[in-house]
Amino acid sequence: MQAWTFTTGFGFGNLALQDRPTPRPGPGELLLEMRAASLNYRDLVVLRGQHGRAVQPPLIPLSDGVGVVTDTGPGVTGIAPGDRVCPAFFQNWDGGDPPADLDSGRLGGPLDGVLATHRVFPAAGVVPVPDHLTDAEAATLPCAGLTAWSALMAAPPVRPGETVLILGTGGVALMAVLLAKAAGAAVIVTTSSPDKAARIAALGADYVVDRGATPDWAAEVRAATGGVDRVLELGGAATLPDAIRCTRTGGQVILIGNVTGNRAELFLPAILTRQLTLRSVTVGSKQGFAAMARAIAQHGLRPVVGRVYPFTEAPEAFRAMEAQAVFGNICIGIGTGRTA
Amino acid sequence: MQAWTFTTGFGFGNLALQDRPTPRPGPGELLLEMRAASLNYRDLVVLRGQHGRAVQPPLIPLSDGVGVVTDTGPGVTGIAPGDRVCPAFFQNWDGGDPPADLDSGRLGGPLDGVLATHRVFPAAGVVPVPDHLTDAEAATLPCAGLTAWSALMAAPPVRPGETVLILGTGGVALMAVLLAKAAGAAVIVTTSSPDKAARIAALGADYVVDRGATPDWAAEVRAATGGVDRVLELGGAATLPDAIRCTRTGGQVILIGNVTGNRAELFLPAILTRQLTLRSVTVGSKQGFAAMARAIAQHGLRPVVGRVYPFTEAPEAFRAMEAQAVFGNICIGIGTGRTA
Amino acid sequence: MQAWTFTTGFGFGNLALQDRPTPRPGPGELLLEMRAASLNYRDLVVLRGQHGRAVQPPLIPLSDGVGVVTDTGPGVTGIAPGDRVCPAFFQNWDGGDPPADLDSGRLGGPLDGVLATHRVFPAAGVVPVPDHLTDAEAATLPCAGLTAWSALMAAPPVRPGETVLILGTGGVALMAVLLAKAAGAAVIVTTSSPDKAARIAALGADYVVDRGATPDWAAEVRAATGGVDRVLELGGAATLPDAIRCTRTGGQVILIGNVTGNRAELFLPAILTRQLTLRSVTVGSKQGFAAMARAIAQHGLRPVVGRVYPFTEAPEAFRAMEAQAVFGNICIGIGTGRTA
Amino acid sequence: MQAWTFTTGFGFGNLALQDRPTPRPGPGELLLEMRAASLNYRDLVVLRGQHGRAVQPPLIPLSDGVGVVTDTGPGVTGIAPGDRVCPAFFQNWDGGDPPADLDSGRLGGPLDGVLATHRVFPAAGVVPVPDHLTDAEAATLPCAGLTAWSALMAAPPVRPGETVLILGTGGVALMAVLLAKAAGAAVIVTTSSPDKAARIAALGADYVVDRGATPDWAAEVRAATGGVDRVLELGGAATLPDAIRCTRTGGQVILIGNVTGNRAELFLPAILTRQLTLRSVTVGSKQGFAAMARAIAQHGLRPVVGRVYPFTEAPEAFRAMEAQAVFGNICIGIGTGRTA
Repeated sequence: MQAWTFTTGFGFGNLALQDRPTPRPGPGELLLEMRAASLNYRDLVVLRGQHGRAVQPPLIPLSDGVGVVTDTGPGVTGIAPGDRVCPAFFQNWDGGDPPADLDSGRLGGPLDGVLATHRVFPAAGVVPVPDHLTDAEAATLPCAGLTAWSALMAAPPVRPGETVLILGTGGVALMAVLLAKAAGAAVIVTTSSPDKAARIAALGADYVVDRGATPDWAAEVRAATGGVDRVLELGGAATLPDAIRCTRTGGQVILIGNVTGNRAELFLPAILTRQLTLRSVTVGSKQGFAAMARAIAQHGLRPVVGRVYPFTEAPEAFRAMEAQAVFGNICIGIGTGRTA
Repeated sequence: MQAWTFTTGFGFGNLALQDRPTPRPGPGELLLEMRAASLNYRDLVVLRGQHGRAVQPPLIPLSDGVGVVTDTGPGVTGIAPGDRVCPAFFQNWDGGDPPADLDSGRLGGPLDGVLATHRVFPAAGVVPVPDHLTDAEAATLPCAGLTAWSALMAAPPVRPGETVLILGTGGVALMAVLLAKAAGAAVIVTTSSPDKAARIAALGADYVVDRGATPDWAAEVRAATGGVDRVLELGGAATLPDAIRCTRTGGQVILIGNVTGNRAELFLPAILTRQLTLRSVTVGSKQGFAAMARAIAQHGLRPVVGRVYPFTEAPEAFRAMEAQAVFGNICIGIGTGRTA
Repeated sequence: MQAWTFTTGFGFGNLALQDRPTPRPGPGELLLEMRAASLNYRDLVVLRGQHGRAVQPPLIPLSDGVGVVTDTGPGVTGIAPGDRVCPAFFQNWDGGDPPADLDSGRLGGPLDGVLATHRVFPAAGVVPVPDHLTDAEAATLPCAGLTAWSALMAAPPVRPGETVLILGTGGVALMAVLLAKAAGAAVIVTTSSPDKAARIAALGADYVVDRGATPDWAAEVRAATGGVDRVLELGGAATLPDAIRCTRTGGQVILIGNVTGNRAELFLPAILTRQLTLRSVTVGSKQGFAAMARAIAQHGLRPVVGRVYPFTEAPEAFRAMEAQAVFGNICIGIGTGRTA
Repeated sequence: MQAWTFTTGFGFGNLALQDRPTPRPGPGELLLEMRAASLNYRDLVVLRGQHGRAVQPPLIPLSDGVGVVTDTGPGVTGIAPGDRVCPAFFQNWDGGDPPADLDSGRLGGPLDGVLATHRVFPAAGVVPVPDHLTDAEAATLPCAGLTAWSALMAAPPVRPGETVLILGTGGVALMAVLLAKAAGAAVIVTTSSPDKAARIAALGADYVVDRGATPDWAAEVRAATGGVDRVLELGGAATLPDAIRCTRTGGQVILIGNVTGNRAELFLPAILTRQLTLRSVTVGSKQGFAAMARAIAQHGLRPVVGRVYPFTEAPEAFRAMEAQAVFGNICIGIGTGRTA
C-alpha cells in the first residue's frame, strides 16, 4: 500500500508518499481499498501544524474518503467485501450525545486519515454510501456533508416554510443548499462573486446576496425576510454579529466555522431580547450519517465536486484549498476510484 | 345575515337556514364576511347527534371556513378590514401544550361554527391564509390541513429520507401527501380504488398500494420498506394493527381517525419489542396553523377541492360527505367566495 | 386608586404617587387589588431611562406583582373574585414559540406595570399562584421566578445527576437554586461574599465558590466537575468567557443577564470544539408560569424575600436595588398584602 | 469458571451448572469476575422457552449482573482491572436511536447472560456503577433500573410539579419510585397489598392506592389528580385501559410490561380526544445507563433488594420469581460479591 504521511513534522516539506505493508484486518475490523478522498479547511490547519498538541506526526492526513471493503476480520457481520463505505469522521460517536473524549476519535488527526491506497478500520467505524454517487462525490460526505446535515437537523430540524441563511460557498455551504431545499426550506446564500452567485442559484438557492454589491447584506436579508429562522454561520468572528442581526426572534444561529477569525464580539442585548440560540455543530454521529445518506439517496442529491487531483499529486490539492479558488469540493482520486 | 342552524335538535330535519341580525364586533373582536366552508367527518358526527353532551343545539355547524374582515371592534391591532383569515378550529389553543379544557374551544360544536354569511370572532381567534389559494381551498385548512401538518410535524418532525405511510384518501390524507412531499419525505398511500390511486400518484405520492388488489397491504409495505418511519393512522380499529406492523423499530404511529371503529385490539409485543410510539394528534394550535400557512405559501401548495356546493344547498354537502364518493374536500361557497 | 407613575420622564424626580379613578373591567377583563410587587434589575434600567424608545412615560413601573381579583367583566370564566393571581410578565405569550412582537407585551414598560393599588388586566393575562406563599413571595414569580424556571427547563430540561452552575446571588439565581434542587440536580453557585456563601448553602446549594478567595473560579469549577451540564449565565460580558470554559462537551450556557456589560468577547474554538449551545432565555410564557407554580406548590418552595418596603416608600426600594446590598428579592407591600 | 446453562432445552430440567475453561479477553475485550446477578420477568419467559426462535440453547441465562474487571485484551483503554461494571443489557445500543437489529444484542438471550463466575465482554459493552451500591444492588441496574430511568426520561423528561403514576411493585416500579422522587415528581403507586403499600410509602411514594380496597383505582387517581402527567404502564392488557383513563390531556402512557396479557383493547376516543401519547420503552442505551448512574450516585439511591440466593442455588431464584412473593429484586450472589 501507499500512504501520504506527515513524517517528522507538518508542512508541505514533511508530506511524503510512503510505501508500507498493506495491513490486515483484526477481529471486528475490515480492510478498505480507498477510492477517493476530499479536503476540508481543517486539513489545511493540520498541514500548517496549527491544530494543537493532540495532532502529531507521523500522520496520514485527511478525514474524508470512501473505499471498498476487500477483506474482513473475524466476527464482522452485516458488511462484506464489495461494499462501498465511508469511514466516519468521528470513529467514537455512534449516536445520541457526543462522548466526552470526542476529539480523540477524529480521522486525519489525531487518528490516521484516509489519504492512502488501503486502510484498516473497525467495522463499526464505517457507514454505507448511496449507490448513485461517484467516488469523488461520496468522499465529500463524512465531514462537509454531515456538517451540513447536522446543522439543518439540529433540534428542532428545519421545516418547510422556514428560511435558512447560509454564509458562503464552501463545501459545507453547497451541501447545505441541496439538503435545505430537500427539506423544503427557502434558502438564502451570501457570496462575494457574481459568478458564484449564478452557480449557487443553479443549485436551487432561492435568493443569493452578493456581498460585494451589497456590503450590508445583513440589512438586506433582514428586510427581505423579517428575520430568518436559522443561519449556518460558516464565517466566524467577522460574520457572527451580522448573522445574529439577521435572525428572527426565537431563531437559531448554527456555529460551524471560524475561517475569518476566532475572537468574535458578541452584543448581548441582540441575543437576549430576541431569545436566540447559538448552537455549535461539529460534524455529527454515525447515526446522523446514515440518516443523511438516506436523504441523499432518496432525492438523488449530488455533492458539488469542484476539482479532482490524482493521488500522486495530493499536495496540489492542499495548494488549491489554500488558494480558495475552486467552487466545490476539492477531491483526490485513489486507485480505481470513479471521480466523474 | 343568514346562518344554517341546528335548531332544536340534530339531523337533516333540524338543519334550517335562518335570518339573523348581523352581529357587531365588541372589544377585541372582528366581523367576518364568510367566503367558503369545508366539511370534515366530524361534522357528520355532529349532524347525527353522536358527538356527546357538550355539543347541543342551537348550533351553527362546520368548523372549517374562511372569510374577509369587514369590521373590527375597539382595541384590535394587527389585523384590518380586507384581510382574509380562517377562524382557528380550537379558539383556545395558541401554542405549546393543549389547554385542559381544549374541547370547549372547538368551532362547529360546542361553539357556533362557520356555515353563515357573517360571524364575529375574537381577533386572537383567526389566522391569515396564503394569498394564492381560492376561498374553497383556504376553507379546508383549519381542520383537515392543520391535522395533516401536525401529524407530520409532531416531535420529531418528518425529515428528508424518511418514509411516511398515509392510510386512505380523505381530506387529511390528501393534504398530508402534499405536505410530506414538501418536507422531503417519501410517501406511500393506501387506497381501495385504482381511480383514486392514479389521482394520488398525480399529487406526488411515491407509491400507492391498492388495498383491493393487495389485501395484505401491510406485508407489502413492510417488504418494500423494511418498516416505515411514520404512519398517519386515519382508519381506526380496523387498520391500527396493520399500521403497527408496518412501522420500523423506533418509529411512530400518529393516531388521527376512527372511521372504521372505536375499539381496536392492540397486540402489545408488537409495540414493546420495536419501541414504537403511538401519538394522538388532534388538529393543532394557532401557531401550528401559521407555520403550515408559511409552508403552503412557500411551496404554492393547493389543497384538493373535490366538489363545491352553493350556500343554499348546504345539506347536499352533508349528504355528499355521507356518501363518501367525492375525491377531495367537500366545500361550500358563501357570498362572493371564489371557489375555483 | 393610587399608582406610582413616571410622569413626564424617567428618574427619581419624575416618579410620583398619583390618585386616579379606579378602572372597571371591560369584557374579558378583571380588576386586581394589588397586594405586593417586586423589583428586578430591568426596573432600574427603566428608571434610568435607558430602556429604549419603546418604553415611554407616562408609565406605571414594575413588572412583578400579585393581587386579588375583586371584579370581573362580561364573559370572564374560570376565575372569580377572591382568586389570587400574578399578571404575566409577557401579556402576549401563552405558550410555544414567543410571538414576533414579544416586547410589546411586557409589563412595566411599554405596558403599565403593577406598582398601583388597583389594576385592570385581561383575564387571559393572569395566572394563579400557590397558596402557601406570602404576597411578597408570590410577587417575585413573574420575572425572577419564571426566568429561573425557564433557564432550567429549556429543552432539554435539567435532570437528576446533572450539575448546574449558577452565577451570582440575585433574585433569579436564588430561585434557580431552589428549583434546580427540586429537579434533582447538583448546584454550584458563585458569590463574592462569605456571608452570602453561607446563606446560599443554607438554601441547598451543594457547593459555593467564593470569587474573592478564588479569582479563577472557572478553573475550580472545571476541576471539581470536569465541566458542568448547564450554566445560568447571569453576569454578562465579564463572566461569559469563564462560563463557557466551565461547560462540558455538549453542555449549554443559558444567557440571561448582562449586568457586567453588553459586549462580550467570544473565543469561538472553545464553543466549536465542545459543541456548546448558548441559549437565551427571556422570562417565559404563561404555560411556563403554570408549570413552575405547580412545582413550587408541590415542593413548598419559598422565594427569598430580602426586604419589604411599604407602598408609600416605593422609591426607597429602587434605591435599595441600586445599592445591591440586599440578599434576596426587594419587595413592596401594597394595601393589605401579607409580606411576612 | 462455572456457568449455569440451559443445555439442550429450556425449563428447570435443562438448567445445569457447568464447569468450563475460563475465557481470555481478545482485542478490545475484558474479563469480568462476576459478583452478583439479578432476575427480571423476562428471565422467566426465557426459562419457559417462550421467548421465540431467536433465543436458543445452549444459553447462559440472566441479563442483569455486575462484575469486576480482572483482565483486559489488547487495545482496551479507559478501563482497568479492579473497575466494577455492569454489562449493558443491549450490547449494541450506545445512544440515540435504537439500531434496527436491537434484539440481537440482548444478554440472557440471544447472547449469553451473566449467571457465571466469569464472562468476557467487549470493553465498549460495559458501564461503570456507583461506588456506594452493594453488588446485589448494582446487579439490578441493567434492565430494571434502566427501564425505570428511560420511562421517566423519555422525551420530554419528567419535571418537578408533575405527577407520575406507577402500576405495581415489581423491580422496575420500585426503582421508578426512587428515580421519580429524585426528579422532583409526585408519585402515585398502585398495589394489591396493604403490606406492600406501607413499604412503598417508606420508599417515598406520595400516595399509594390499594387495588384491593379500591377496585376502581383509576377513578380514584383521576379524582385525586385531575389526570396524571405520565403513567408507567407495567401491567399490560388488563391495566392499559385504566392507565389511559388516568392520564391528563396531552399526557403520556409509557408502555413497558405485559404480565397481565398481550392483547389489550384500546378505546380510541379516549386517546384521540385527549391527545395522549403511548410510548414504548425497552430498557435503554449505554448513554442512558451512564446518566442514570450519575443520578443514583448523586442522590445515594439504593435499589431495593428483596432476597439474595447463593450462586449454587440459582434455580431457587427462578422459583421465587415465579411465586411473585418477594418485595424487591431477586438477586444471586456470585463469588465474593457483597450482597448486603
